[in-house]
Amino acid sequence: MNQLKLRQMLEGFFLEDIGENDVTSQTIFPPNQQGKGVFVAKASGVIAGLPVMREAYCMLDSEIELTLHFSEGDWVNAGDRIAEVSGPVAQLLTGERVILNLMQRMSGIATMTKKSVDALNDSSINICDTRKTVPGLRMLDKYAVTVGGGRNHRIGLYDGVMIKDNHISFCGSITKAVEAVRENIGHMVKIEVETETEKQVKEAVGAGADVIMFDNRTPEEMKAFSSLVPDHILTEASGGITMETLPSYANTGVDVISLGFLTHSVEALDISLTVNVSQ
Amino acid sequence: MNQLKLRQMLEGFFLEDIGENDVTSQTIFPPNQQGKGVFVAKASGVIAGLPVMREAYCMLDSEIELTLHFSEGDWVNAGDRIAEVSGPVAQLLTGERVILNLMQRMSGIATMTKKSVDALNDSSINICDTRKTVPGLRMLDKYAVTVGGGRNHRIGLYDGVMIKDNHISFCGSITKAVEAVRENIGHMVKIEVETETEKQVKEAVGAGADVIMFDNRTPEEMKAFSSLVPDHILTEASGGITMETLPSYANTGVDVISLGFLTHSVEALDISLTVNVSQ
Amino acid sequence: MNQLKLRQMLEGFFLEDIGENDVTSQTIFPPNQQGKGVFVAKASGVIAGLPVMREAYCMLDSEIELTLHFSEGDWVNAGDRIAEVSGPVAQLLTGERVILNLMQRMSGIATMTKKSVDALNDSSINICDTRKTVPGLRMLDKYAVTVGGGRNHRIGLYDGVMIKDNHISFCGSITKAVEAVRENIGHMVKIEVETETEKQVKEAVGAGADVIMFDNRTPEEMKAFSSLVPDHILTEASGGITMETLPSYANTGVDVISLGFLTHSVEALDISLTVNVSQ
Amino acid sequence: MNQLKLRQMLEGFFLEDIGENDVTSQTIFPPNQQGKGVFVAKASGVIAGLPVMREAYCMLDSEIELTLHFSEGDWVNAGDRIAEVSGPVAQLLTGERVILNLMQRMSGIATMTKKSVDALNDSSINICDTRKTVPGLRMLDKYAVTVGGGRNHRIGLYDGVMIKDNHISFCGSITKAVEAVRENIGHMVKIEVETETEKQVKEAVGAGADVIMFDNRTPEEMKAFSSLVPDHILTEASGGITMETLPSYANTGVDVISLGFLTHSVEALDISLTVNVSQ
Amino acid sequence: MNQLKLRQMLEGFFLEDIGENDVTSQTIFPPNQQGKGVFVAKASGVIAGLPVMREAYCMLDSEIELTLHFSEGDWVNAGDRIAEVSGPVAQLLTGERVILNLMQRMSGIATMTKKSVDALNDSSINICDTRKTVPGLRMLDKYAVTVGGGRNHRIGLYDGVMIKDNHISFCGSITKAVEAVRENIGHMVKIEVETETEKQVKEAVGAGADVIMFDNRTPEEMKAFSSLVPDHILTEASGGITMETLPSYANTGVDVISLGFLTHSVEALDISLTVNVSQ
Amino acid sequence: MNQLKLRQMLEGFFLEDIGENDVTSQTIFPPNQQGKGVFVAKASGVIAGLPVMREAYCMLDSEIELTLHFSEGDWVNAGDRIAEVSGPVAQLLTGERVILNLMQRMSGIATMTKKSVDALNDSSINICDTRKTVPGLRMLDKYAVTVGGGRNHRIGLYDGVMIKDNHISFCGSITKAVEAVRENIGHMVKIEVETETEKQVKEAVGAGADVIMFDNRTPEEMKAFSSLVPDHILTEASGGITMETLPSYANTGVDVISLGFLTHSVEALDISLTVNVSQ
Repeated sequence: MNQLKLRQMLEGFFLEDIGENDVTSQTIFPPNQQGKGVFVAKASGVIAGLPVMREAYCMLDSEIELTLHFSEGDWVNAGDRIAEVSGPVAQLLTGERVILNLMQRMSGIATMTKKSVDALNDSSINICDTRKTVPGLRMLDKYAVTVGGGRNHRIGLYDGVMIKDNHISFCGSITKAVEAVRENIGHMVKIEVETETEKQVKEAVGAGADVIMFDNRTPEEMKAFSSLVPDHILTEASGGITMETLPSYANTGVDVISLGFLTHSVEALDISLTVNVSQ
Repeated sequence: MNQLKLRQMLEGFFLEDIGENDVTSQTIFPPNQQGKGVFVAKASGVIAGLPVMREAYCMLDSEIELTLHFSEGDWVNAGDRIAEVSGPVAQLLTGERVILNLMQRMSGIATMTKKSVDALNDSSINICDTRKTVPGLRMLDKYAVTVGGGRNHRIGLYDGVMIKDNHISFCGSITKAVEAVRENIGHMVKIEVETETEKQVKEAVGAGADVIMFDNRTPEEMKAFSSLVPDHILTEASGGITMETLPSYANTGVDVISLGFLTHSVEALDISLTVNVSQ
Repeated sequence: MNQLKLRQMLEGFFLEDIGENDVTSQTIFPPNQQGKGVFVAKASGVIAGLPVMREAYCMLDSEIELTLHFSEGDWVNAGDRIAEVSGPVAQLLTGERVILNLMQRMSGIATMTKKSVDALNDSSINICDTRKTVPGLRMLDKYAVTVGGGRNHRIGLYDGVMIKDNHISFCGSITKAVEAVRENIGHMVKIEVETETEKQVKEAVGAGADVIMFDNRTPEEMKAFSSLVPDHILTEASGGITMETLPSYANTGVDVISLGFLTHSVEALDISLTVNVSQ
Repeated sequence: MNQLKLRQMLEGFFLEDIGENDVTSQTIFPPNQQGKGVFVAKASGVIAGLPVMREAYCMLDSEIELTLHFSEGDWVNAGDRIAEVSGPVAQLLTGERVILNLMQRMSGIATMTKKSVDALNDSSINICDTRKTVPGLRMLDKYAVTVGGGRNHRIGLYDGVMIKDNHISFCGSITKAVEAVRENIGHMVKIEVETETEKQVKEAVGAGADVIMFDNRTPEEMKAFSSLVPDHILTEASGGITMETLPSYANTGVDVISLGFLTHSVEALDISLTVNVSQ
Repeated sequence: MNQLKLRQMLEGFFLEDIGENDVTSQTIFPPNQQGKGVFVAKASGVIAGLPVMREAYCMLDSEIELTLHFSEGDWVNAGDRIAEVSGPVAQLLTGERVILNLMQRMSGIATMTKKSVDALNDSSINICDTRKTVPGLRMLDKYAVTVGGGRNHRIGLYDGVMIKDNHISFCGSITKAVEAVRENIGHMVKIEVETETEKQVKEAVGAGADVIMFDNRTPEEMKAFSSLVPDHILTEASGGITMETLPSYANTGVDVISLGFLTHSVEALDISLTVNVSQ
Repeated sequence: MNQLKLRQMLEGFFLEDIGENDVTSQTIFPPNQQGKGVFVAKASGVIAGLPVMREAYCMLDSEIELTLHFSEGDWVNAGDRIAEVSGPVAQLLTGERVILNLMQRMSGIATMTKKSVDALNDSSINICDTRKTVPGLRMLDKYAVTVGGGRNHRIGLYDGVMIKDNHISFCGSITKAVEAVRENIGHMVKIEVETETEKQVKEAVGAGADVIMFDNRTPEEMKAFSSLVPDHILTEASGGITMETLPSYANTGVDVISLGFLTHSVEALDISLTVNVSQ
């Protein structure tokens, strides 16, 4: 995670929520009134976003002190005290919602990723994300996937080629599409090809694709397709895989399974922050 | 929705996804190659975000034409063709993911809001959102709630006062907390007070709160509390209300029910975009 | 005042004035040459903007030390030493103009507000500002009004409804206009209605307006109108009130008097900064 | 005036005022409801800011049409119709305050400048501004001075050297200060020296200053000092000159008189906008 | 090239050069004065940046018309008329320097790339760039390389792994370094390993590197090393290769040669713009 | 150099190179792993950019310590150790390329400037730059020229007037062009006029130009022209002067020689950074 980019993002998020002023806490508490807060998990899951929390408080007030009781990626149980924070109470409360919104989403993503990894129960296959992230939060969404034990697919349209139906039909064949791209892009960019049939898989292998995706295939098809692909070419299962069907993709021999639901429909992990004014 | 702000947000979202270049579609298709796309609902729900879609395509390429088959806020069924788009095919594909990510989230929020309104089935009570939105997307998240038939709570910390436990305990009483705030804020800012007991409700009424929240109370308590509050003061039910328990809050006499789950754990409405290259 | 927003504003202001370089002081003084400066009031008034001064110097050079002899909102007399500053002399001089421009405007606003409060001499009525602020400075202009003992009207178009002539005529009546708005906005947003006649005032009361403005009325009319409005609805006198006519609005029973001249035609409070190079 | 910079500034100003939404006009009027507005001068003065008005409306809605009845810099009398505007009425009202705030300030500056030029009544002397502008508005403030018949002093710290007391005392003499600067700055940057005595004026001439300022001198002193300065070196009268004392500086032979009050204490020119909804 | 990013960059570049105003051309020419300009090559080379020129003029003034006599990537000879432009003459001149600075640099890079491709004279080897680009211009610098017939290495630190000496020594071996990275990064990211000896090359092959760089090796060594690497792994020659030594790297069997000098020491292609005022 | 602007620029440069993450060094090294680096000159020249290096490391990580062995502007020989840096090794490596790209360009400019000054060998004539800088880097490019012993021409279009052919032909004469400008610009802005003939030079003198440029003239012509110009008007030689022809312009009596090649075709000064992981 790029710390400079994180700071820029947090600045925007705080401006969105605080606007001209926090008319409640900044009005009630004098600037030097101290307070303490404790973050408690209200549900069980993987905690993610602790470095975001640290940077956020630092940005609000350099006097705020943060004590962590868990490490990034740890499993927390409902009731666990995740972290304690102390400093000017008005600042603790002004920052509360933005920090919780981020932590809960990130922990929700990490938890879902961990559950997917566990459900699959095949350490030879990596679980990875997609570009179905919330616009503006891609860096954090994708980082949270790694905290949960998953991997990242390409970050955006710029760092990986994905050849789909309409590209293939325009070029005339997988081979021609791969060639068209390879003649123009750099040697550090991987080319992935979407396939649906054995014939397409074989053509993609012949065309020298770096990664071959099996799109919306059954576990059996995936298994059959995988066996057609040499070791140095990676294979990816994708399309319509749910938490329920995920275990059936174990032992299919694919290298990666990409799951849109990790980020497109995130269930926030419930975390509370209770702040008390110091006497 | 502020159109100037929308444009600024979309610019950021496209830069995040496209980066230096879409290395697939911009490489394969010549700039003038035309194409057509159709947005199809893969699940049923309320469609939201059509003005966002229009602005986004306009920003990518002023030649792109958009034909809508539904209006903002309409209910669509799985299989319905929502909109058709035509123009340079590379641009249609470059914009696909950002536009779908936004539309799916916004429609998911609108759909959940509509379902909440229907589940409550009490037109005298408004369903409203909270600040549990995704950082950076508050304007769109809150707009989507209104598309689904809900209302907006305060936008941020700057446009409404919310007096909670720790403010009250610091000031000594609800009355003192309301006074402390009222002496400093403008006359256009409403003051809401969180209450948990009949005594607190009565004190909040006496203190002249504009809105009184009943925090984590049973429907019966809500009903009892509401009857203590004169008409010109609004009442809000909040805290731990789920889609399942929502119907039991009908006829409690409160004016507003705020629901964090409308935005903090959004299930995206599945929408697909199929693009074909023109012959 | 949101400190993060203040920093962002100050950064822009310094870039505007300094550009690529301060070709005078940065050329003449070596970076480590120390100096001292003293801010002196050249006219009497309310001092406002000390937190801005502190943040500004901190941004220019963390070594600069600031000693304040007055507190925010204090009355200073011509000749009073407001503050002393010491540190690298080139930085003291580079920052001089931006800091003085802000301090003088803010103190001018605070002073005018204080004079208005004094002229009115009716502590039951609050003096408040309008949106007639300098574009880009609204947060500081409105903050300065509070330093001078005034209150803030709505911050912008987003945090309060103001129903005027053309809205009413389009909707058909005050009642219909209030209803049209209330059906769409959130419960935390106040609705203010502009009125000019007794009949309109009564209609606004009946429509449940939160605030009723008496637009361009004589003190006698204001008094008569106020008596028609129940306690829980606020009343505002507005339109064409000058420092001269202000005293006549005492005892009219309105809650608020809004004054455009507090911010649209600010007379800067003259403050000088004298910097000496340390030996 | 740099049009690209103007757009960037206007975008910021509109975001400041509109925020997430104009909750009044955008709620009441349907997007296609047309309207007309007329800008009327409520006081007499020089009109300035018409290009700003045009760009601002264009940014809000490209359908808005603007008809000007006066040209930039014209004198308008109270009651004159300055311009008419037509288009979507919600947008006309949403933009009203920002546009008026800018126009009124700019016209106020232009009017004061024109009055200063007239008061001085010596066409051999140029009236010019200072850096005492509102932070964030320097381009517009300084442009307005030119509309009123004045000239611009340096824009910021980067485009002109101004050697003052503390620079001179640090360097040891005017001559040494001018030399220190000249050895480091480019040949396109003018060097101005502040002087208070005949001896200093002579030293500044000898040192090859491009501009010599007579700081806080009487008209008689200014006249005497001017006569000591060769034609190719410009002279500037500055410091404490008011509208009242300005006429006494005619025929002093200086080239320029700089007036801080043109921009630091601007009295807005009252301009109204009356908008009517089209039938 | 991402058009939205290009616009953002151009806006910044124009603000840098124009500042508050072009005090020469905007002062001398009335806004409607038309003019014509012709871009002429003063040296021979590959022309690059025509889309940048088009976007830049469009941003300055939508009335400006541009006629191209060459296409992007064409070879032009000294004296060739590259393009003609017509429109408001002040805008043509205001934009001149920024547009020429960009065109000349981009054409210089494209020309050097073309010369490198020609000098190498081995179509089985691609010439590519490095990250030795001018900060802030990476997108344009790398695009220009492709216009000249070269390819792009990774864009930044985010889209490709490059394992060097210090990574290897910290991990203990190439194998361990590749493993350490592979366990953490996504499957779309290629891993390149720097090698200097035959042993290292073999280890990199065994570790499954996607690309193996031969760092600062002689052509003979390169040839020997290449033969050790299977086809599906790419090889890159890098380090200290100059235009003079480049031909000796033909037929070494490497896939790519990366050349820092393409972008770190660009000789601008001399292009002039002659503008005439229309009669 | 404006430090606030420098920080803003560096932030943009780092975001460009690092993107979401440095996938190599941030993956391999734990955050607390320390390291040391040494900057070594690989070629001889003037070192420039040390304050940029300091600010850049400070921005990446406040723990990084920098020890300089040379001062800004010193001549370094190939092999000299310029500076040493220690701190978290991942951050040292993440920042390497941006810092080297800036240092090498700036040192290249400073070196070329120094060589030009030496080649000219006439201390009565200043070498200066032009606006032929890389867009986005003007502040650094121009600063580097001063480090190498040169001076800056105008920074942009806003801080100096340059009257050329087309301005003159439009106005009718040099005299009219100078008058047209002088009537509109401020007294702190210098007016430079391009001339090619003795007649033009004389006219420019008569018109009161502040600077007269001799465009593309031989040294003999320059000498002749210079003698026509009084001392208080500066003269500038410009146009097509190369490092080879530069010595012939010594003793021509001009005040300034402007050289586009100082910045438009920069040969980077080779500097290496070797980083070692601490044991």
